Amino acid sequence: MKPLVLSMGDAAGIGPEIILKGLGQAPLEARGCVVYGDMAVMRRAQALPGLDTLPLVLAEVTDLDEVGRLPPRCLGVLQACDLVGLPAWGQVQAEAGRAAAQCVSAAAQAVLEGRAGALVTAPLHKEALAAAGPPWSAYPGHTELLQHEAARHLGCATQELPVRMMLVSPQLRTVLVSIHVSLRQALDLVTPERVLATIKIAHHSMLPHLGRPPRLAVAGLNPHAGEGGLFGREEIEVIAPAVEQARQAGIEASGPHPPDTVFMRAREGAFDAVVAMYHDQGLIPVKYLGLAHGVNVTLGLPMVRTSPDHGTAFDLAGSGRADPSSWLAALRLARQWSERSAL
Amino acid sequence: MKPLVLSMGDAAGIGPEIILKGLGQAPLEARGCVVYGDMAVMRRAQALPGLDTLPLVLAEVTDLDEVGRLPPRCLGVLQACDLVGLPAWGQVQAEAGRAAAQCVSAAAQAVLEGRAGALVTAPLHKEALAAAGPPWSAYPGHTELLQHEAARHLGCATQELPVRMMLVSPQLRTVLVSIHVSLRQALDLVTPERVLATIKIAHHSMLPHLGRPPRLAVAGLNPHAGEGGLFGREEIEVIAPAVEQARQAGIEASGPHPPDTVFMRAREGAFDAVVAMYHDQGLIPVKYLGLAHGVNVTLGLPMVRTSPDHGTAFDLAGSGRADPSSWLAALRLARQWSERSAL
Repeated sequence: MKPLVLSMGDAAGIGPEIILKGLGQAPLEARGCVVYGDMAVMRRAQALPGLDTLPLVLAEVTDLDEVGRLPPRCLGVLQACDLVGLPAWGQVQAEAGRAAAQCVSAAAQAVLEGRAGALVTAPLHKEALAAAGPPWSAYPGHTELLQHEAARHLGCATQELPVRMMLVSPQLRTVLVSIHVSLRQALDLVTPERVLATIKIAHHSMLPHLGRPPRLAVAGLNPHAGEGGLFGREEIEVIAPAVEQARQAGIEASGPHPPDTVFMRAREGAFDAVVAMYHDQGLIPVKYLGLAHGVNVTLGLPMVRTSPDHGTAFDLAGSGRADPSSWLAALRLARQWSERSAL
Repeated sequence: MKPLVLSMGDAAGIGPEIILKGLGQAPLEARGCVVYGDMAVMRRAQALPGLDTLPLVLAEVTDLDEVGRLPPRCLGVLQACDLVGLPAWGQVQAEAGRAAAQCVSAAAQAVLEGRAGALVTAPLHKEALAAAGPPWSAYPGHTELLQHEAARHLGCATQELPVRMMLVSPQLRTVLVSIHVSLRQALDLVTPERVLATIKIAHHSMLPHLGRPPRLAVAGLNPHAGEGGLFGREEIEVIAPAVEQARQAGIEASGPHPPDTVFMRAREGAFDAVVAMYHDQGLIPVKYLGLAHGVNVTLGLPMVRTSPDHGTAFDLAGSGRADPSSWLAALRLARQWSERSAL
């Protein structure tokens, strides 16, 4: 089995802590894992309150081939950045942003080149990334940086690699047509092209992991999915035609479904995932039963990438009180997807 | 204790069945209840498969005073419409629409005049109501009919009685700024006046039932509540000022909160209700854990009115297979609110 690469995240945030705490709590999960990070940063996190007693040993590796030979309860750390010294906890620092980006970039290359099976990213801080200087400051966040690395690997333009965010909870998967734009702008992004692209990305990403075509429910945009055009015509003019095109391409898509019940039906097992028309339509139900186990998956990249559904939590950094549940769920999902892809 | 009036709903739908089945399954709940309906319609429902063995007796009453003297497991039926014959199951029929409206009107008057404690409506069919002829065809649904009756009772104009829909599940209460309009129109309805009116209606309606000021969370409109204006400015320009005005009026309102976590926090107990900016924002989380126990409460009327969170289900009518859970939850909530109001 190929190694799983874990990017360290911003060294001033909770990333190093949640990696160690998550694997300390579930040491069997450490098999085959390697942190792309900085050993001094990881050792500092290991000395945090409550972490010093965890049954996990750090071992510096210089090559991914070494990971498979590490003994149980031993986590490999590969020096993947040029950090000098230890960034202060909980502050935006250019050097921490640069180090985090270097780790993500090197880790992505390992997965793209087939030397590793999947990437689990720990949170980076967008302001620190913006302060990191070229080339890193050109990327608003993980997604754009990973799109760039993947496009470079494939030799295509970044815009030829559309990606979508999938949120996964233990009960529900949802794939979003748009994310961080105002609701008014999100309405304008509900176009036949974007809806169809989202359905296709969801289908092609989930197919290898489920081992069968996913049953995709496409949500409507308006109350009651527009009630036949009474409350909005996007269902008739945009969403239904996109669903029809997807079905003609052999995709098991249905809808548009009334938004207020489609997520409940997916939770009950009627669908494998719901294509949501905007950020909160999908995220309200995914988060409703709790944040601890939410995982973010980037679909559309030629690699498996998962991340926890939270940020650097600078207010908690260095306290030893960060909750590793979401990161651990992201690791488990990455392992599952990467193993199924390898079949 | 004042009687609870139960409107029969459209005689061609599942209303009569869910009343009998609900009270047959929970016969102690029948105490103090009276159906505003038609005895022949109720007797037909009583003969449906599975209902004939329920431990519930129907007794015709001609006056609300008789209700308190009925023996246990006996449900009063008051002739409140001029229906002749039995409407066919599952069809839009003008006479069924007229009968349903007459029952609602008479039942509302009984509550408004203080002769009854609360109204639980069974579903009516909007097309049947539209076919019912004047004055009933002027009302798109229950809400407008009840607004009209209440305004007439109070001697004010209908538009002086703004109402809001509250949806209640066992885990969550949400009050909606707008309901059956397109999402695009709903954005235009997020005005300082409407948001403030919704907060005030929620506050004044829940205060007597909780026995203390409700803790109201006001949701944002945009992802992350706009993230400081990055993804939309409605939070800054509209919602925050309305929350501030409400607080100055002594209301325990907070927000705008990020929509994707505020419903989860309310479910966990942080708030008594969430003011939602549009239909699906509130209804997706209320319905996520299942429809069986959802209740609709009309806030803003000078009376307690609840209803189940479903329609006439013409496809099920006459089969004996309708689920009375939501109607029974509506009855229990109406009793609870009406008893607390009477303290």
